[in-house]
Amino acid sequence: MTEIITIQQAVMEEDEKYARGVRRSMSEKKILMVNVIGSPGCGKTTLLEQTASKPGEGNSPGFTFAVIEGDLETSRDAERLAAAKIEAIQINTKGGCHLQAHVIEQGLFSLESRLGLDSLDVLFIENVGNLVCPAEFDLGEDFKVAVSSVPEGADKPLKYPMLFHQAKAVLLTKVDLLPHVEFDKELFLKDVKSLNPQSPVIELDLTSGAGIEDWISFLYARLEEKRAHAG
Amino acid sequence: MTEIITIQQAVMEEDEKYARGVRRSMSEKKILMVNVIGSPGCGKTTLLEQTASKPGEGNSPGFTFAVIEGDLETSRDAERLAAAKIEAIQINTKGGCHLQAHVIEQGLFSLESRLGLDSLDVLFIENVGNLVCPAEFDLGEDFKVAVSSVPEGADKPLKYPMLFHQAKAVLLTKVDLLPHVEFDKELFLKDVKSLNPQSPVIELDLTSGAGIEDWISFLYARLEEKRAHAG
Repeated sequence: MTEIITIQQAVMEEDEKYARGVRRSMSEKKILMVNVIGSPGCGKTTLLEQTASKPGEGNSPGFTFAVIEGDLETSRDAERLAAAKIEAIQINTKGGCHLQAHVIEQGLFSLESRLGLDSLDVLFIENVGNLVCPAEFDLGEDFKVAVSSVPEGADKPLKYPMLFHQAKAVLLTKVDLLPHVEFDKELFLKDVKSLNPQSPVIELDLTSGAGIEDWISFLYARLEEKRAHAG
Repeated sequence: MTEIITIQQAVMEEDEKYARGVRRSMSEKKILMVNVIGSPGCGKTTLLEQTASKPGEGNSPGFTFAVIEGDLETSRDAERLAAAKIEAIQINTKGGCHLQAHVIEQGLFSLESRLGLDSLDVLFIENVGNLVCPAEFDLGEDFKVAVSSVPEGADKPLKYPMLFHQAKAVLLTKVDLLPHVEFDKELFLKDVKSLNPQSPVIELDLTSGAGIEDWISFLYARLEEKRAHAG
């Protein structure tokens, strides 16, 4: 057992080197990198489509972005994003349950050669649909975001605490289904707060787009912080 | 890299030994063991509650069952099952994204000492909420069942093909939400068929319990097959 743990450690340390490289490169270019994590079908791709459809207003004048799309198989999500005129790189993990930093580095090379990274403000990573494994891996992102949809039920934060504990924001999607399913919102908010007192919970109806402005304002504020920090 | 693969292989081979042991023991006792796999919040626990609430009828005179419950953290699901008077053993994987056969063996010991296995017809394993990793591990079960809920979207079979390819049945849950969400049922059925021509798709409304008889008949037929095979 010790030997296995040692080797796993070595693999993870190798990957952390890639993560540091990605982080350094994103920092130099002042690109905000956001690792989007949630269950299969919680609305990650729709969130990105909606993010593109709303130009910024007032205090958040919008931003340009691209997406690195992770999936086990198929390029359906990247095709959906392309149809919404979003620049996207599809990565198929071929059965792998999460993305890793060395794959992100390859994705960045592809994006650089295709459209140049200098034009970007934000880079989203849409991770493999999975609440467990993606939470354990640093991809070099500025922060992780947890996406949880109403029909999944209100018990998810305590059942998948690692993700909710780390997330810089929790997006509660499909709130339009609240009248049709059992969902104890008070419990959900209380459990998120207990795991992660600082993290805002942003409620989203991705069908109508209601709430998307709050998400964009949140991102824009983080982008401004990163720019200010980079000087 | 070769060394890592070799050691991973050894760990998996070790686990396959446990899986064979579990399978042999379930075969001697003529217990049907069903590994239930699906996304977080797809309705796995509710399915088991509903399975207990419907006594068998006509050609499927019902069966006794117990549950081995896998979760990263919390014992909420086992508490829900206990409230529904279902015998359940909770296993916390402490961050692990799937159950493994050696853990199932421990669960069987606990069940044996608590209620004796001889009284059981069926043993359900409710796996960790995850469409990816649980599909890769043999727990000694008779078969896997894939649970996919309508709000997750119709694109899940092709995006998570390993599970849908292996499943002996696909349960499409939350069909009561069909009027409220976009879901291309024709596409879903077509994709399941392409991955797994033999597997029936059983549609379930877990709020009203509609469809649960089909599920119980399906299980009862498999139990009869197992008993006939065991002679």
